[in-house]
Amino acid sequence: MARELAAKRRNENEIEFGRIVAFSDGVFAIAITLLVLNLGIDKHLTEGQIDDALWGQRDLFFAYAISFAVIGRFWLVHHRFFSEVRAFDGRLIALNLVYLGSIVLIPFSSELLGEYGGTTTAVVFYSVNLAVVVLLGLLLHVDARRRGLTRIDDRTHRETQIRSTYIAGIFLLSVPVAYFAPDVAPYLWLVLFIDPSSRLAGRGSAGDDESGRVARSGTGD
Amino acid sequence: MARELAAKRRNENEIEFGRIVAFSDGVFAIAITLLVLNLGIDKHLTEGQIDDALWGQRDLFFAYAISFAVIGRFWLVHHRFFSEVRAFDGRLIALNLVYLGSIVLIPFSSELLGEYGGTTTAVVFYSVNLAVVVLLGLLLHVDARRRGLTRIDDRTHRETQIRSTYIAGIFLLSVPVAYFAPDVAPYLWLVLFIDPSSRLAGRGSAGDDESGRVARSGTGD
Amino acid sequence: MARELAAKRRNENEIEFGRIVAFSDGVFAIAITLLVLNLGIDKHLTEGQIDDALWGQRDLFFAYAISFAVIGRFWLVHHRFFSEVRAFDGRLIALNLVYLGSIVLIPFSSELLGEYGGTTTAVVFYSVNLAVVVLLGLLLHVDARRRGLTRIDDRTHRETQIRSTYIAGIFLLSVPVAYFAPDVAPYLWLVLFIDPSSRLAGRGSAGDDESGRVARSGTGD
Amino acid sequence: MARELAAKRRNENEIEFGRIVAFSDGVFAIAITLLVLNLGIDKHLTEGQIDDALWGQRDLFFAYAISFAVIGRFWLVHHRFFSEVRAFDGRLIALNLVYLGSIVLIPFSSELLGEYGGTTTAVVFYSVNLAVVVLLGLLLHVDARRRGLTRIDDRTHRETQIRSTYIAGIFLLSVPVAYFAPDVAPYLWLVLFIDPSSRLAGRGSAGDDESGRVARSGTGD
Repeated sequence: MARELAAKRRNENEIEFGRIVAFSDGVFAIAITLLVLNLGIDKHLTEGQIDDALWGQRDLFFAYAISFAVIGRFWLVHHRFFSEVRAFDGRLIALNLVYLGSIVLIPFSSELLGEYGGTTTAVVFYSVNLAVVVLLGLLLHVDARRRGLTRIDDRTHRETQIRSTYIAGIFLLSVPVAYFAPDVAPYLWLVLFIDPSSRLAGRGSAGDDESGRVARSGTGD
Repeated sequence: MARELAAKRRNENEIEFGRIVAFSDGVFAIAITLLVLNLGIDKHLTEGQIDDALWGQRDLFFAYAISFAVIGRFWLVHHRFFSEVRAFDGRLIALNLVYLGSIVLIPFSSELLGEYGGTTTAVVFYSVNLAVVVLLGLLLHVDARRRGLTRIDDRTHRETQIRSTYIAGIFLLSVPVAYFAPDVAPYLWLVLFIDPSSRLAGRGSAGDDESGRVARSGTGD
Repeated sequence: MARELAAKRRNENEIEFGRIVAFSDGVFAIAITLLVLNLGIDKHLTEGQIDDALWGQRDLFFAYAISFAVIGRFWLVHHRFFSEVRAFDGRLIALNLVYLGSIVLIPFSSELLGEYGGTTTAVVFYSVNLAVVVLLGLLLHVDARRRGLTRIDDRTHRETQIRSTYIAGIFLLSVPVAYFAPDVAPYLWLVLFIDPSSRLAGRGSAGDDESGRVARSGTGD
Repeated sequence: MARELAAKRRNENEIEFGRIVAFSDGVFAIAITLLVLNLGIDKHLTEGQIDDALWGQRDLFFAYAISFAVIGRFWLVHHRFFSEVRAFDGRLIALNLVYLGSIVLIPFSSELLGEYGGTTTAVVFYSVNLAVVVLLGLLLHVDARRRGLTRIDDRTHRETQIRSTYIAGIFLLSVPVAYFAPDVAPYLWLVLFIDPSSRLAGRGSAGDDESGRVARSGTGD
């Protein structure tokens, strides 16, 4: 049916579009807050045992902090992506739901990582979960752009592609590493703090993104 | 009292209407996110036990995926329905609450299905829960239309009726099947991927929905 | 400080006002959805035990249904109240928070009622919780009206006062009853289906609410 | 990149700004509602044990009430701060996320305080959690103002600085006290009811906030 296949323009369906965004934000907000449920304290401990119980949870606190940052970061990227969406259809909504399904798994992966941080299974599970989120996010991005639903410019598009591939690559690389050295694998994630996507995208765009370069040199970049 | 019985027009009460929709979206978002709480990992496992523990939860992961898709799909339908609502009254709000009450049960039904997937009880409980959601959704739809609160056209209305009856029928059919072959019953749900409602509704509307047909042929349908 | 004491007009601070309402809606939506967490199924049951386990939870299902209806109803009343609010200040927001604090307790009271429905303690706890919600709601209503923050008319105001006193009275009456016959006390709540407030308010308003009466007779009331 | 570094004006990006606020409100609403999950009742108790079980949870009810008030209060302050924000950028959003990360920890700190209220560990953990929230809130405030993202006036700014330092100071002061007298330390928090910030800020502003003084005297302050 044409009615269902045609994309709706955002500015003509602001309320309906707002619901998709609000629903997504709700899922993000709940997923990030549920992380606290991974923390907890046993009942009926003696005073001396409390400190040990908390100290025994240090990996869970660490996993809480990482996963809070990770979900917060994904929310930001999602936020930025949807601010560029001009039109939407059933397929965008469906892909977004699948994407959210991988976000909602993070509190579980995080619990696993917090409880069994030094094990191959936990590291692999967490890495694959995050890689899937990144790749589904990229799919959402590429698919929406290809079908003309966003107004993302070439340079930002290239940046997103490079960055997503880079992040997913690091996580997937930590999978084989985790089989040999599960304790070491999480340190690989530190490489994520070096983000080469903006420079790489800039170099690639030298030929076809003149205005962008001017804008950048104008701010001393 | 006339004041309470009269329906309020949506465009004159956009904020009040927005609250109903936002509340519903909130309930959907929380219900879909709570699904992750059905997953979990025991504490104090040895490294060798972790893989077994995760593997032992494969049905729970499967139930998570199904129920995420199911709640997401119900949200979409609810979303589309409310985008056509023109006016609302206490009765629409009350029916919507009852509908949401059946949505919120899904995480529990899903836990049951995930833990005891091969049993008659779990399959029956899950099937009846989903059938009730679909039938309450249909009631909401039909009641709102009959009282002039929506602007849903004839064709979409017929489609919704056929689709809802079809889906509820499949779920209710899986109840007797589950008594004889609980392992097989869930496969019956695969029939849901074949959705005949649009074709059936189209055939039925041949006589009285001329403009719709023109619009469709205009887009090469 | 005058700045803080002065109420802000709603139509000049729509976004700020919207946040209060959205926050309240969020709390209602989460509280109503958390009710499902009171349901749950033990692990490692044999097939024969599952039915017994579910049947043993029948009071919890009953408590789920009652509490869903109760929170839904409170949300509706809250919804209607805030649709009449014209201005807000720190005091209204603070009272609203205290009110929400009593709403958020309902999932716990409901768990207690579901687990120990036939006991004095559970019935008293649940009754007092709901009575407190109703009385705080009345306080919110009366205080906002006395300070000119709402545009609620006389008749609706009287109705709210009568209805709130009536509902809180029934719940408080069930407290002494629960000490002698905890099994019987919940049946007292059935009296709540008879709502005399609209008739009583109508009778009381005969002298000073002429326009209201005309409007009612005009619609055949 | 200039695009990313430049702050976006709120009134030109109302929807994007609205998402940040809605996400924050969602996190606050969920965190405050999750507090109820710290309450709970064991199964299979005899009637005589129920009262004891509830009475044994009196500290948890107390912690629930305190933490509900605390999160509610933080929400109010956050609410007021964002109502003054004129522009936003990635840094404001990132700081806001870190701030929310400390809010989401409160249900856990509250559980610890409710279970082990009389112990040094619980009091220290709770105090440090709240002090961190207040200091991160101050950082958010000061940083946004320094970079011209808010329109907060001098007097309100000074008040916020004094109040935040005062509150964080009380909580940090209760840390050493908790090492010697953990039972006494929470009483120190009662000092928080005396809020000297408004008077101190007023005195300090005598010289440079003439217009503010006039406005105040004009309203009979």
